[in-house]
Amino acid sequence: MFSAIDHKHMAHALRLAARGLYTTAPNPRVGCVIAHGDEVVGSGFHQRAGEPHAEVFALREAGQRARGATAYVTLEPCAHHGRTPPCADALIASGVGRVVVAAEDPFDQVDGRGMSRLRAADITVETGLMREAARELNIGFFSRIERGRPFVRVKLAMSLDGRTALANGDSKWITGEAARADVQHWRARSSAILTGSGTVLADNPRLTVRLAAGSLACGEGERVKPLRVILDRQLRTPPDSHVLDAAAPTLLLHAAGTTPATTHAAPIEYASVAEQGDVLDLHAVLALLATRDCNEVHVEAGPTLCGALFAAGLVDELLLYIAPVMLGGEAAPLMKLPALTEMASRWSLRLLDQRMLGPDIRLRLRPA
Amino acid sequence: MFSAIDHKHMAHALRLAARGLYTTAPNPRVGCVIAHGDEVVGSGFHQRAGEPHAEVFALREAGQRARGATAYVTLEPCAHHGRTPPCADALIASGVGRVVVAAEDPFDQVDGRGMSRLRAADITVETGLMREAARELNIGFFSRIERGRPFVRVKLAMSLDGRTALANGDSKWITGEAARADVQHWRARSSAILTGSGTVLADNPRLTVRLAAGSLACGEGERVKPLRVILDRQLRTPPDSHVLDAAAPTLLLHAAGTTPATTHAAPIEYASVAEQGDVLDLHAVLALLATRDCNEVHVEAGPTLCGALFAAGLVDELLLYIAPVMLGGEAAPLMKLPALTEMASRWSLRLLDQRMLGPDIRLRLRPA
Repeated sequence: MFSAIDHKHMAHALRLAARGLYTTAPNPRVGCVIAHGDEVVGSGFHQRAGEPHAEVFALREAGQRARGATAYVTLEPCAHHGRTPPCADALIASGVGRVVVAAEDPFDQVDGRGMSRLRAADITVETGLMREAARELNIGFFSRIERGRPFVRVKLAMSLDGRTALANGDSKWITGEAARADVQHWRARSSAILTGSGTVLADNPRLTVRLAAGSLACGEGERVKPLRVILDRQLRTPPDSHVLDAAAPTLLLHAAGTTPATTHAAPIEYASVAEQGDVLDLHAVLALLATRDCNEVHVEAGPTLCGALFAAGLVDELLLYIAPVMLGGEAAPLMKLPALTEMASRWSLRLLDQRMLGPDIRLRLRPA
Repeated sequence: MFSAIDHKHMAHALRLAARGLYTTAPNPRVGCVIAHGDEVVGSGFHQRAGEPHAEVFALREAGQRARGATAYVTLEPCAHHGRTPPCADALIASGVGRVVVAAEDPFDQVDGRGMSRLRAADITVETGLMREAARELNIGFFSRIERGRPFVRVKLAMSLDGRTALANGDSKWITGEAARADVQHWRARSSAILTGSGTVLADNPRLTVRLAAGSLACGEGERVKPLRVILDRQLRTPPDSHVLDAAAPTLLLHAAGTTPATTHAAPIEYASVAEQGDVLDLHAVLALLATRDCNEVHVEAGPTLCGALFAAGLVDELLLYIAPVMLGGEAAPLMKLPALTEMASRWSLRLLDQRMLGPDIRLRLRPA
């Protein structure tokens, strides 16, 4: 159904889309290539919410040469007037003869309408070319639209014996510099960085993105700063915590009965969330973050919160950094999980990839 | 100093040597190639203790063509009458003009004498070509001769959260079939398989090599069966344990004050070892195994024995199989180690290699 040339152009469009990895949130990352056979006449990608979509950049470059061409788009063209006019209309007006779409857009106001509109204008529309890669690139966007909750990625660093800290709490620098720099990229692509007040009290983390200039594929000014989200049922976060500084926006989630004694100026916000037992309801937390347009949520928290998310089936990806050290049996465990009585009920994951980062190893896993 | 052709022939000799991986114990694995320039005129490897050395096979094949040739040997040729006559003499008699040696043989009765004897016969002798690979192939032999103790490799299988068993002791099949088959190869190349009586009582393991026919580079009959060694201070091993069957030789090590109530027929042996506190002295155990010509010792034991070996600095290699599952915080730890109070005193290792085995991951590590 799809030719080698089709694959080549869609792969190109996907590479373009990926250039928006750190800048398009809450919008999806989208790329577009317009070609006659092997010859590319226009290409573009979506850079930032509110600015033109990928198709617009590609059509501008192609100009009159779009007529009779094939447009390769990594996500179904929009059919609604948002902050920009519908891309489906722009494609029709350009005179392209065929549109190849990688993944359908499940967003309410698109959801097939983009393709219908193109077909109604007698344009050949084909879908599904490299769909999996296209969905992977926007895994958080699809999760939010289709499941009503963000894609949750939990980062953990541990020793070979599965320990994250010594018994005395010392957890600084288990892993090396390369692993820590890698973590910054995962933070940067996320809409939110989530932790618990226990971690804030113990480690006073900044939860910002710190990367050497030029190490992202975008300028520092273009990057969307992830929202810092603190699960702080009783509002214990000390006023002088780093997470309350002005370096990035912060959202403190607390129990309904608790009100902030002192509130901070923007960009600090407060919101109450339902409780489940004596902790905040994690499903409600994620639902709230979805309503705030969070696509990917990056979790860096202690064994209690990580264990609770994992046991509730809310961890979509585990980013596990393993340092080649042993910390000994009295050290803190990776996650606090309920005790199992039979091997058959173990939690199974599947390894996506493994790589070396300096002396350390990174495993990326998802529920099996 | 060494040419590309030299490297090619020595690499060939090393591949030949490796064919003795499962059969030469307690002798080292040795290969030999005899060549004129690019042309190989003879090659061979040591197959089994008591049988001819690698040089003899290669010289037999070369015949008169050995005259003026270069002999590539992965280990210094012997200079003494053991169960076979000295290979240095055979090389001299053959008329080879040059001998290239990968690694010097530290064995008392060789230790430079092989090379001296060749040089005295006006043969050019050069050493050190691919020395590291040659030493790696016989890492246990070098350890026994140079350090007076075997090379100790500890195999552990764990979950992502560093657990080896559930709290109730269930530890069967954490890892999959591919990982378990891989373990059999490491058992097979070892002189001894070591465990503690606690593991015997809990799991009743066989500690034999079980591999599908043809999966080793030698016939099943040629393979040297590793000695099963049980640290059994108080001789608690039940008489009907698998380790006391006739499938392989077994050595039970007990405290000096304890004597076997019932003894078993050969191949079951008993020996007493000094105690240190209320456990057997692990240094003494390894010294004893060295006197019994054990090169590589493969350890499959519980967290207590593994932890004691590790904390005593007696683990030379860690073979860590990680299954992509979580077992929860109440499960058994990887090793029982003393608690650390500062991160600086963590035990550091260095990763040799990592690979996938079915759904599992294998890490091979050595002390940093």
